[in-house]
Amino acid sequence: MIDVQSVLSRYAPDPEEKNNIERLVHNLESRIRSITARDGIDAEPVLVGSVAKHTNLKNADIDIFIVFSRKYRTTEMEKLGLKIGHEVLPEGVERYAEHPYVSGAIEGRKIDLVPCFRIDKGSGIVSSVDRTPLHTEYVLSHLDREGQDQVRLLKLFMKAIGVYGSEVRTRGFSGYVCELLIINKKNFQEVLRFFSESKGRIIIPSDSDLAKKYNAPFILQDPTDASRNAGAAVSMENLSRMKLESRLYLLEPSENFFTPKMEPAPALARNNGTALRIIRLPRPDLVDDIIFSQGERLRKIVVEHLQERGFHVMDSDLYVGETVDVLVEAEIGILPAFVRHYGPPVDSENSVDFVRKWGSRSFRGPYVHEDRVCADIHQEMRGIDESILSILERSNIGKNLQAVKPLAKVIDPLATGEAFKVIGKYYSRNIVS
Amino acid sequence: MIDVQSVLSRYAPDPEEKNNIERLVHNLESRIRSITARDGIDAEPVLVGSVAKHTNLKNADIDIFIVFSRKYRTTEMEKLGLKIGHEVLPEGVERYAEHPYVSGAIEGRKIDLVPCFRIDKGSGIVSSVDRTPLHTEYVLSHLDREGQDQVRLLKLFMKAIGVYGSEVRTRGFSGYVCELLIINKKNFQEVLRFFSESKGRIIIPSDSDLAKKYNAPFILQDPTDASRNAGAAVSMENLSRMKLESRLYLLEPSENFFTPKMEPAPALARNNGTALRIIRLPRPDLVDDIIFSQGERLRKIVVEHLQERGFHVMDSDLYVGETVDVLVEAEIGILPAFVRHYGPPVDSENSVDFVRKWGSRSFRGPYVHEDRVCADIHQEMRGIDESILSILERSNIGKNLQAVKPLAKVIDPLATGEAFKVIGKYYSRNIVS
Repeated sequence: MIDVQSVLSRYAPDPEEKNNIERLVHNLESRIRSITARDGIDAEPVLVGSVAKHTNLKNADIDIFIVFSRKYRTTEMEKLGLKIGHEVLPEGVERYAEHPYVSGAIEGRKIDLVPCFRIDKGSGIVSSVDRTPLHTEYVLSHLDREGQDQVRLLKLFMKAIGVYGSEVRTRGFSGYVCELLIINKKNFQEVLRFFSESKGRIIIPSDSDLAKKYNAPFILQDPTDASRNAGAAVSMENLSRMKLESRLYLLEPSENFFTPKMEPAPALARNNGTALRIIRLPRPDLVDDIIFSQGERLRKIVVEHLQERGFHVMDSDLYVGETVDVLVEAEIGILPAFVRHYGPPVDSENSVDFVRKWGSRSFRGPYVHEDRVCADIHQEMRGIDESILSILERSNIGKNLQAVKPLAKVIDPLATGEAFKVIGKYYSRNIVS
Repeated sequence: MIDVQSVLSRYAPDPEEKNNIERLVHNLESRIRSITARDGIDAEPVLVGSVAKHTNLKNADIDIFIVFSRKYRTTEMEKLGLKIGHEVLPEGVERYAEHPYVSGAIEGRKIDLVPCFRIDKGSGIVSSVDRTPLHTEYVLSHLDREGQDQVRLLKLFMKAIGVYGSEVRTRGFSGYVCELLIINKKNFQEVLRFFSESKGRIIIPSDSDLAKKYNAPFILQDPTDASRNAGAAVSMENLSRMKLESRLYLLEPSENFFTPKMEPAPALARNNGTALRIIRLPRPDLVDDIIFSQGERLRKIVVEHLQERGFHVMDSDLYVGETVDVLVEAEIGILPAFVRHYGPPVDSENSVDFVRKWGSRSFRGPYVHEDRVCADIHQEMRGIDESILSILERSNIGKNLQAVKPLAKVIDPLATGEAFKVIGKYYSRNIVS
């Protein structure tokens, strides 16, 4: 059996950290209140995120929303929000989620000051940011101290197996989903039992109408808004991983399942007789979610087109650090000198035109294969590097990556002999057990 | 337009050849009759084949059946048949079709003396050899001299485009099918028009019951036996070729369409960045049909297994000469060092066993891909040569080739720098136009 208390003592905040956070939050809220009072702004600070809900792990960020009255127009609210943010965090930088906000640090702890509008339950469609304070309220009123620790265990487990986080980077389970799961299933053990016994898609509650509305693999109805799937971000793969790892843990619990997953270390390429390439773009200065979704789009476009051209892509990966790196591993680095070009069925009138067109220009044929006329024609572009560059040139890879496309490099990591983080990530795709 | 008479004068027998054949046939029949009279054998010679039907091209074989009374048992008939054959053709050798027979040559012309049983129309199931005399009779009574020349043109056309002959080697149109087509459609031009306008499978007559019984692409009901498809040998590919070439000829007639196709000349391999291999077996001393069907089986087995192992076979061919040569061209000559091994869906109980089995033995993983658990495992056998040899070792490639399997060689024609007929055949797979 696992010593749950020892796991918690390692990864949950101790009393000293809790006191520090409380003091910090109190100071930040006071600063904000004094500014709004001074400038006559109708807004108030609300602590949100895991700290507010007492489900935070060690070194959690502090997220404070600056909740504005609905009397402000959006642009005005955003402008005032940034002004307050910069005054409270003079070293902070601007970031952009649904509204712009200021992000900084105090005593080494990350602080986000995020402006939003005040809403009440059932007040119609609002942004997910604006909805956050309702989540805080719901969780605070449904989780006791024991439940808070169970959430922490579940988060640790999900982090260790790589399915924690609803960002595009991960497409996994958010902190709020962890909280709802514990509220629903009572404790960590029962949540794992539930996943380990589930087949196919998961719907909570099982009779939720959302199941008809969405075909997401994981549906968890938001108790603060019955029309919203709180688990919309969860990919099929992460749901599958969660089911399998839950089963493995219940069969043989181990502290491995709570050991935070490390960032991949840079790794050297292995010579597997394949064509391994890294497509590297400079990273535009934008929030992760935007970069990741464009990076994913780039990855898919490259894979799909290389596949069509006959390189037989085996696998691919994406790593975003200081650069956007897409890795592809293909069976073939140089295509054959010819390719079979299928013409129309012989029964079609066009088959004669095909014969005339390719009669003298083909490498072999035209000939009849089954019921179609074909010709083997010269392969125009044979190398994987030039193919990747031509794919980049012809494709729209998303607004922001598109702009840095001319700076794209295709790297053969075996030729450079250099270690890459995307390779480290690619090779470490393992199940925890 | 084509000068039909000039084509015929080049490829049909001239009066001198016709006289020679007549004399030869008369002599052979007399010899057979004198032997049967001397030995009291109830049998008589019947000239069959294209010579009997006056549809022969230059240098045609002479086929004489020795038609036995049904009072003989099969073994007795075959023994007597061979005895007569050897006496008439002392230099002849024994061959085996449905019954054994003697094959020899006189004045450089090939002669086959084939024993068979006498049958009458509608006398029930008999061998196709025994049915041959009925075909001769039917064609003789339905084709006039002009029709005979039209058959000769059709045969020449089919030879030139490579679809003439019902043997396994060709899987095309037999001489008898050519005759029936001219009888049905009146002349060469109309036969081509018919093929050029046909879509999908061909059924003659169009209301034939055989269409329900067989799903062959080409059905031509035998007028001497309504239950038999005279065109059963015709492959989809040869039917397609016949349709397309008919259309090309009618659009632009040319003497190319009557120029006999040459045996492929040996050719050197081209370096296409592919893996080209020839699997060579000694040729067992058996009739073509048996060797070809076992050679085809070998070709299919090798292609299918290489495909399964991931070599991506592009095309293949078979050439039977003094050896049985199977050619394969594949995209890959050496497989990657690893292969993705798909385990069960994570929802299956076995997914845990899969993780345990491959946990420490895999190259990468086990990991979750979509809804399945996978592991990248080491590829055991990477080279195409060793893979071909292991495929040969594990497969049954037909009774007679099986026996010579230990003598199989895998040749890389680029490495030997030698020219091969199978390569000549492979590269010359062209439509006539």
